Amino acid sequence: MNDTLTAVAGLRVGHWTDRVGQTGCTVILCPPEGCVASVAVCGSGPASRETALLAPEKSVQRVHAVVLSGGSAFGLDAAGGVMRWLEERGRGFNTPCGPVPIVPAAAIYDLWSGDPRARPGCAQGYRAAQAATSGPVDMGRVGAGTGAKVGSYRGIEYASPGGLGSASAELAGATVAVLAVVNAGGNVVDPHSGRLVAGVSEGIGGLSDHFAGTEGTATTLVIVATDAPISKAEARLLAGSAQSGLVRAVRPVTLFDGDTCFVLSTASGPGVPLVALSLVVQELVARAIVAAVSPPP
Amino acid sequence: MNDTLTAVAGLRVGHWTDRVGQTGCTVILCPPEGCVASVAVCGSGPASRETALLAPEKSVQRVHAVVLSGGSAFGLDAAGGVMRWLEERGRGFNTPCGPVPIVPAAAIYDLWSGDPRARPGCAQGYRAAQAATSGPVDMGRVGAGTGAKVGSYRGIEYASPGGLGSASAELAGATVAVLAVVNAGGNVVDPHSGRLVAGVSEGIGGLSDHFAGTEGTATTLVIVATDAPISKAEARLLAGSAQSGLVRAVRPVTLFDGDTCFVLSTASGPGVPLVALSLVVQELVARAIVAAVSPPP
Repeated sequence: MNDTLTAVAGLRVGHWTDRVGQTGCTVILCPPEGCVASVAVCGSGPASRETALLAPEKSVQRVHAVVLSGGSAFGLDAAGGVMRWLEERGRGFNTPCGPVPIVPAAAIYDLWSGDPRARPGCAQGYRAAQAATSGPVDMGRVGAGTGAKVGSYRGIEYASPGGLGSASAELAGATVAVLAVVNAGGNVVDPHSGRLVAGVSEGIGGLSDHFAGTEGTATTLVIVATDAPISKAEARLLAGSAQSGLVRAVRPVTLFDGDTCFVLSTASGPGVPLVALSLVVQELVARAIVAAVSPPP
Repeated sequence: MNDTLTAVAGLRVGHWTDRVGQTGCTVILCPPEGCVASVAVCGSGPASRETALLAPEKSVQRVHAVVLSGGSAFGLDAAGGVMRWLEERGRGFNTPCGPVPIVPAAAIYDLWSGDPRARPGCAQGYRAAQAATSGPVDMGRVGAGTGAKVGSYRGIEYASPGGLGSASAELAGATVAVLAVVNAGGNVVDPHSGRLVAGVSEGIGGLSDHFAGTEGTATTLVIVATDAPISKAEARLLAGSAQSGLVRAVRPVTLFDGDTCFVLSTASGPGVPLVALSLVVQELVARAIVAAVSPPP
């Protein structure tokens, strides 16, 4: 059974991974007709591309891919390569002079890891799109999670490896799934047991939770996907639920991170109540975050 | 006298222009320490990069350049080239692993003009940065304005050439200046005389103002700059004033365009009352839009 983002029929996920430079990018390809989408940018230091059009009142309704990348803001270039790959296949927002693929993107700061000059660019985004499959998503230190760290809020010297995780669930015949790139300033905690999964072992929740990290260098990126039909405004609401799930599994969430949650709907499955969806999303986001730093063997 | 954006000391503007492909890009370089900045994305079909961090509550306070580009969303790649140029010079948001230049960008849909496959990319953004000077900004069909059109709301066959314009003013010892890339769905009208400057001659403001254009294919991009010190929140307010100036000179403003107004402050001049600034901004935006389609000889 596929317990990852590609459990949602029609989605394909591809990684480009640089093990030496310790960075990478991950592309989520939508079906050719695109996905209804929105975003919540809750962190205060985001690196982003094409998020303005995801506001519920903006006219573009569907996106054709989403790119998550390492390389800090430099990594946003990877989206250009995915646009090229999509255009070559005739996919995009239909305009009189050809399709314009809509490809929102967000990036994490992973310049601490490996070679700080190694960043995903246009060519690397293209290769991630080429590598995309509908099979179970590889987890751990791959794609955009390759150079991720967690627990940097006490200083980067205390941080431990982050990564990329995914989880899925059925809900009244619909499928809901999550992919998370965990580069959190805080620790990762199992929300059910309270157990520390990754990060700094001392002082969780105590007075010693002093921030000694660096502003703008930690981020958790989340993709929520479902086949349940939802509106763009509902996608925006669910992005807020995704942030709630993040807060369950990341402690503490610092003020200065770039946490960004995208929500995608293929709209090809049965309708389910939004409130039920929101509860499942919270649970799955927490599970995906835990999986990112403790991938199944 | 310099009556263009570079009247604000410390700013440099460079164009890359493709006369055959009929597209281009324009980069506004800030002083090395960056500019306080924000944005208003009033149009409903924006193509944008790094606008999320410009919200007043986000932590990044200063940007190092802004890129305006043709090529629709493909043109957002030009910002990557400007980031490279800035990084080579050690400019950017200071991080432990080197500077990360903050370069917001927005693009117009100009694929109607010339070769629809010609779009500014990373290399073209880099060249525009190399070309940047503090001299008066070249206006008309240059840079991001090369392939612009106005009056497409009645159908692209009725549209006339758009372009790039600029204007500046002194205000109690401070300098205020505007640059506009006019690719409006509506016509350009002189707000003082009501005279049609460019666009479709028939039916302005009348019952025949029927929309027969294409959603998401018209945009006016505006840069407001000043040396008056303002906060990020005040920059956001002034971006709203810029949109008011746009509405003075563009008729009608259609619901489906991507109008985006950036505001930059070098903070190196005298303080002036915000309300006075907002009135000058409105006037200058209208003047820059008129200048874009009727550049001085």
